Amino acid sequence: MTQPFQNIDRLSLNQITTNAWNMKEAVDGCARAGVPWIAMWRDKVEAAGLSASRKLAQDAGLRVSSLCRGGYFPAATAAERRARIDDNRRAVDEAAELGAEVLVLVCGPAADRDIEGARAQVAEGIAEIVPYARERGVKLGIEPLHPMYAAQRSVVTTLEQATTMAQLYTPEEVGVVVDVFHVWWDPNLYPQIARAGADGRILGFHVSDWIVPMPDMLLGRGMMGDGVIELRKIRAAVEEAGYTGPIEVEIFNQAIWDMPGDEVVDLMKKRYLEHC
Amino acid sequence: MTQPFQNIDRLSLNQITTNAWNMKEAVDGCARAGVPWIAMWRDKVEAAGLSASRKLAQDAGLRVSSLCRGGYFPAATAAERRARIDDNRRAVDEAAELGAEVLVLVCGPAADRDIEGARAQVAEGIAEIVPYARERGVKLGIEPLHPMYAAQRSVVTTLEQATTMAQLYTPEEVGVVVDVFHVWWDPNLYPQIARAGADGRILGFHVSDWIVPMPDMLLGRGMMGDGVIELRKIRAAVEEAGYTGPIEVEIFNQAIWDMPGDEVVDLMKKRYLEHC
Repeated sequence: MTQPFQNIDRLSLNQITTNAWNMKEAVDGCARAGVPWIAMWRDKVEAAGLSASRKLAQDAGLRVSSLCRGGYFPAATAAERRARIDDNRRAVDEAAELGAEVLVLVCGPAADRDIEGARAQVAEGIAEIVPYARERGVKLGIEPLHPMYAAQRSVVTTLEQATTMAQLYTPEEVGVVVDVFHVWWDPNLYPQIARAGADGRILGFHVSDWIVPMPDMLLGRGMMGDGVIELRKIRAAVEEAGYTGPIEVEIFNQAIWDMPGDEVVDLMKKRYLEHC
Repeated sequence: MTQPFQNIDRLSLNQITTNAWNMKEAVDGCARAGVPWIAMWRDKVEAAGLSASRKLAQDAGLRVSSLCRGGYFPAATAAERRARIDDNRRAVDEAAELGAEVLVLVCGPAADRDIEGARAQVAEGIAEIVPYARERGVKLGIEPLHPMYAAQRSVVTTLEQATTMAQLYTPEEVGVVVDVFHVWWDPNLYPQIARAGADGRILGFHVSDWIVPMPDMLLGRGMMGDGVIELRKIRAAVEEAGYTGPIEVEIFNQAIWDMPGDEVVDLMKKRYLEHC
């Protein structure tokens, strides 16, 4: 059996979990709480400034587990798809500057009803940015999203699909990000975790919980322990598959966003030790 | 290319679509509109009486495409699981009496966090009722539900999984029901439709649409044409796989439930001819 964590050495605050905090507040909050990792969001990096964000984390001794997010490749016109790829190149530059372990790719929805066509556009977009990312030492992590987001956020809906897309490249170029909220329901979850890990393609592991009933399709994720996801079992599988990197707590939830940030971080630490 | 339908010979009103109607109103509504099939729900059958429901449909010349629903096998105790199996036997009896083409199985959620354990309980439950159903000439159709219902309605979340479960039995005993709302997001959809159809295991086909944004996780399905699902493409695949039976319109949507039933049926006919 996988043992509970004895410490928070691998714990990362994904900035969205304390969405009301700006970059400085989030970095300071992690430092106060002894949380050693942070996952940054591009809008908050932009608000604080790229080099300022890097310096804030560096001065606080924080490491950057990921930058969220590139992707959103499908679009109705070639010009718009080109603009999305350019934006992904900027995201790669930012990830390189920040020293992020991985650039997370949320691949985007179809511009129309053609979901297979949109998947092809995702594949084309990734192919365009891989050489650019490789030159800058940035790994790309395809994050399959829960199928309930297929129409609005990602046509990549399963770990199997994400891993198959990643396998067109080396594990140093493209891998996958396993987020329990997105994958817990999958009958193929455990074999697919093993498959993704077999050549070192698991580039990130995100935790939260699925609460019942869900208060909102987007802002309804729960704190670990409040829902039905078998967190420790999935963590064990991800570790068995070879992943020993940072574990991000990524929670979209209005009630949690309305709490004082320090309380969220304290609760996150407690639940991480109890449930992950 | 699959051609649009020229008539409504295969159209079935799933009773939930006109949820405000009781059995007599639904049968009369189908008869007025020339809809040749109806899918019945057990609560409405119970309210009208079993033999009265059968006679209503028979007198109106309606055929029963399915009875909704059996299933809900997992439970916390052996006694409760036994009670669920007994209830499924009653559902088989009702389906036999009604002459329904198939008894739809919505398999149920886990009683706790153990989703794999719940799946085993589903398999055990189906194994218990197959001989009973076979003796009464009732086919069982496992309906995979959208993964967003994994915590509350079904631990069977993909067509692949449902077909694998069905394949323990003959196609005359157990098959699958393909509902576009539940499966449209699946990267393996088309190969899995072909697989399910290869030995005649597709026992039903349900249509509706995925509207954006979704007004409600349970009551947010759309009328065909109002959303993003490639209805005609999926219908073509199901037909290519050999299914030529009734096509149920099954819509859980409060706004549609609040419309006069005759208007719903008219709209359903129009959209079926335009989009399916």
